[in-house]
Amino acid sequence: MAGTTAQTLRPFLWRAARLYPEREIVSRTHEGIERTTYAAYERRVAQLANALDDAGVGRDERIATVCWNHTRHFETYFGVPCRGSQLHTINPLLPDHHIQYIVENAEDRLVFVDPSLVEKLESCYADSNGAFDTVERFVVMGGEVPDTSLAPVTDYESFVEGHDETYDWPDLDEETPAGMCYTSGTTGKPKGVEYTQSMMWAHTMGILPEAGLDLGADDVVMPVVPMFHVMAWGLPHAVTAAGGKHVYPGPAPDPADIARLIEEEEVTFTAGVPTVWLGLLEYLEENDADLSSLERIAIGGAAAPKSLIRTYEEEHGVQVLHAWGMTETSPVAAAAHLKPGMEEWPAEKRDEKRVKQGLVLPGLEFKVMGEDGEVPWNDEDFGELWIRGPWVTTEYFQRPEANETDFEDGWLKTGDVVRVDSEGYIQIVDRAKDVIKSGGEWISSQELENAIMAHDDVSEATVIGVPHEKWQERPVAFVVPREGVGKGPLASDLMDLLSTEYPKWWLPDDVVYIESVPKTATGKFDKKVLREEYSNHAVEAPEEAAPDEE
Amino acid sequence: MAGTTAQTLRPFLWRAARLYPEREIVSRTHEGIERTTYAAYERRVAQLANALDDAGVGRDERIATVCWNHTRHFETYFGVPCRGSQLHTINPLLPDHHIQYIVENAEDRLVFVDPSLVEKLESCYADSNGAFDTVERFVVMGGEVPDTSLAPVTDYESFVEGHDETYDWPDLDEETPAGMCYTSGTTGKPKGVEYTQSMMWAHTMGILPEAGLDLGADDVVMPVVPMFHVMAWGLPHAVTAAGGKHVYPGPAPDPADIARLIEEEEVTFTAGVPTVWLGLLEYLEENDADLSSLERIAIGGAAAPKSLIRTYEEEHGVQVLHAWGMTETSPVAAAAHLKPGMEEWPAEKRDEKRVKQGLVLPGLEFKVMGEDGEVPWNDEDFGELWIRGPWVTTEYFQRPEANETDFEDGWLKTGDVVRVDSEGYIQIVDRAKDVIKSGGEWISSQELENAIMAHDDVSEATVIGVPHEKWQERPVAFVVPREGVGKGPLASDLMDLLSTEYPKWWLPDDVVYIESVPKTATGKFDKKVLREEYSNHAVEAPEEAAPDEE
Repeated sequence: MAGTTAQTLRPFLWRAARLYPEREIVSRTHEGIERTTYAAYERRVAQLANALDDAGVGRDERIATVCWNHTRHFETYFGVPCRGSQLHTINPLLPDHHIQYIVENAEDRLVFVDPSLVEKLESCYADSNGAFDTVERFVVMGGEVPDTSLAPVTDYESFVEGHDETYDWPDLDEETPAGMCYTSGTTGKPKGVEYTQSMMWAHTMGILPEAGLDLGADDVVMPVVPMFHVMAWGLPHAVTAAGGKHVYPGPAPDPADIARLIEEEEVTFTAGVPTVWLGLLEYLEENDADLSSLERIAIGGAAAPKSLIRTYEEEHGVQVLHAWGMTETSPVAAAAHLKPGMEEWPAEKRDEKRVKQGLVLPGLEFKVMGEDGEVPWNDEDFGELWIRGPWVTTEYFQRPEANETDFEDGWLKTGDVVRVDSEGYIQIVDRAKDVIKSGGEWISSQELENAIMAHDDVSEATVIGVPHEKWQERPVAFVVPREGVGKGPLASDLMDLLSTEYPKWWLPDDVVYIESVPKTATGKFDKKVLREEYSNHAVEAPEEAAPDEE
Repeated sequence: MAGTTAQTLRPFLWRAARLYPEREIVSRTHEGIERTTYAAYERRVAQLANALDDAGVGRDERIATVCWNHTRHFETYFGVPCRGSQLHTINPLLPDHHIQYIVENAEDRLVFVDPSLVEKLESCYADSNGAFDTVERFVVMGGEVPDTSLAPVTDYESFVEGHDETYDWPDLDEETPAGMCYTSGTTGKPKGVEYTQSMMWAHTMGILPEAGLDLGADDVVMPVVPMFHVMAWGLPHAVTAAGGKHVYPGPAPDPADIARLIEEEEVTFTAGVPTVWLGLLEYLEENDADLSSLERIAIGGAAAPKSLIRTYEEEHGVQVLHAWGMTETSPVAAAAHLKPGMEEWPAEKRDEKRVKQGLVLPGLEFKVMGEDGEVPWNDEDFGELWIRGPWVTTEYFQRPEANETDFEDGWLKTGDVVRVDSEGYIQIVDRAKDVIKSGGEWISSQELENAIMAHDDVSEATVIGVPHEKWQERPVAFVVPREGVGKGPLASDLMDLLSTEYPKWWLPDDVVYIESVPKTATGKFDKKVLREEYSNHAVEAPEEAAPDEE
């Protein structure tokens, strides 16, 4: 049978460097704006690959990054997979024990880490019980090595410096593992998702068209979504494929930084979780900024409120595109594009479509499974969303037990409970797997519940997310104390307990005492009842109720 | 390693029928305009697949079509490959002996044929020496069987009628052969190119983005390029993936038909060879037509003159996109998009980019090979274009000798001699393989030369294409008669001889007597010399110097 050459990432880099050599890659740093071009970038990528060779890192190894969005991190995006290695982006906002598990499970050989994240990594490294045994070297992003317990350690500039600016890239098989991310949204330990060259190729091609994120050479794209969140939704690779200009907002950008980058770099397309865009709107109420270059914002990671969509459109002439995906789907799988003719609809009716998770991308398939099989698309019946396709994984890394439950006949059972309207727009109505999303980051309610219930004075407990204007959801604990226990001291005890194991932004904003946790017919905790009852429960979230970004 | 579900065409059909059930598929027929929708189309496709099952056609068989552009033909585009069979579109404009060879070589099991092409197929069938032995049935597109020597024969409506409107589509391996086209551009017998499910998937995804043909759900796409020309450049599959509206212009559309379809169906995008668009321009000079819906014309198959591009842009507000590809590249491999900033260039300078074959699509790679290896992109040096990628074949069907010469290390050696400017725009300057293109159709100069030189009174002869305003190129024969031969009778003799073997539009428009054919240093015919000398040689082409389209 006729063959072809493999689907790999390398030709995207090759094409950008040849056809758009002077197109810019811009990065905000603590020292100001850094600029480079595709031509120079390609040389740096080659230097990085040569440096990895010379450091004795095998081509089939996993290489981790613990980094924000900047050009050096982007260099690993092509440098690592194009030499045949696997780029493993680690989310630095996870609890220490999760990161320890992840590094151990992935057997990372080398870790690139931002200076601002060294302290966090040191904390994971300290009592890791051998979790970091496979790590042969840490490379701190930048030009100097900070005083650190991480060892052995090099700085990135010394690591790549002096190496050859060309590299004899191997012709890879398209099934070669190229990327890896862990998903910690659901119960139990984080689960690894591996991306092959072919999956990343397919996802790149999948998000380029109008039905995806619609990216072209004219676009100036700023991924605010962190590069450790499923490869910044695949944008760094796709923008390269398109020949667009990249703008990386660097560590912990605040709304003023974002507004300034849009204005100064003439950003046309940006992407991130709703919290970021709510923050920008607040900023714009008080400050002037020229957003006239900005055409579109892709919002994902959590549902975007209708008011947000409307305000950007009406007050700033910016189109908000609601997109949906998961680590398991590379991630972009659906986008709430309007269909032909809907532009003419009244704004209210139109926005009802726009706030949904949207239309599945060309190349993928989904179905909604209720208790008695497939559920019709009638905007009423709901069931679990199952999805499959060339950029949807069919297994977790070394997790046979999860593979048993989470996949079936090539379908990924997403755990999201959805209904689909007659137009085919998917809407998430609940989560089969209990997780809370605060500022776009997952908080495992089950982990918190287990920790709370481990306290001797607690009879039963559950944790749910209550809606929050800024952070979308914040955790609230519902606790049934044992008889005779003093409620005041218990709450304070529980918070102390949780603080030792979880980051500050995971801690419940309120502890509510109840007489019993509502149960389903089969005796399981019925969180739906509490969610409905407490949908207006006001909590006072901490200043940074998403991860502290630096 | 993590897997995914295969890259196949089926999800494109599934998505279009679910998300755009009422979007139209329109077809011009002799009886007027026929309309259907994706929802109804999906049912017909299922009926067709069931009909093939019931006719005993194995899933792994090849199924041929000899058809123009219409909805029934489009039904085979999904019905055949989605059941696991291979769609083999045959070019009815080829000489009979080529079609005989193709059917025999492909071992087609069933042939769909248009009523208007029955006569042509009968002519191939008549003295086929067993070439049609594998063909078990002919199905004539339409509702009745004409009086014909083709046997056994059914009409399409009877063939599909009454069959179940759903089909249990198999989960195919992505390496399953899904399509096949023969290329007859070069020397020797036509060569088969097979397309796997994955190749067709990749090509579909490759042409959807802005860097490809930029197709979306809002588009109304009319492929004027015949569906037997490399699957109408992949448009039927890509438009389905995008959820756009299809408009098929039916048999032999003339400029008035094309103008009317654009106006009445509000076509936004159309595609075809330059001859078609020159013809439309001529028509518009004398006739009124509202082309305001039309945004873009993709031109390929032959170079588009600068004046054509300019006139459409300035007089009709239509953007002309020059695209390039081959049967071996599925076909679209490059498109002459302007880069960021070039829109502001003076029209003259801009058009210099637009008339080139353009920028390679994301996902593919090319290089230009001179005698001493790779040639720089300096707009001066030239060499043979080599190309590779996920929708570029790496072999011909059952042609080991051609595979030896035409491929190397996964690269397709295109036979096109090109130079590349410093911006990366590819420009074809000559053909390493001698072919002539008249109205977008190949004429093999070598075949004509061999036929002419077989005449006893001919000493040597060569055939070149001379530029022609309407047909781009027309063949002219250069003949060195043997001494003492009368020139008048010889020319007429030669034309008689060629008429018996080749269609009328293959016949040279002129026979020029010369003293000797110019030779290269190694003694080969040097056609470049004649091409330069005769670049202004006026010939009188027949009324239809492209194939008679009905």
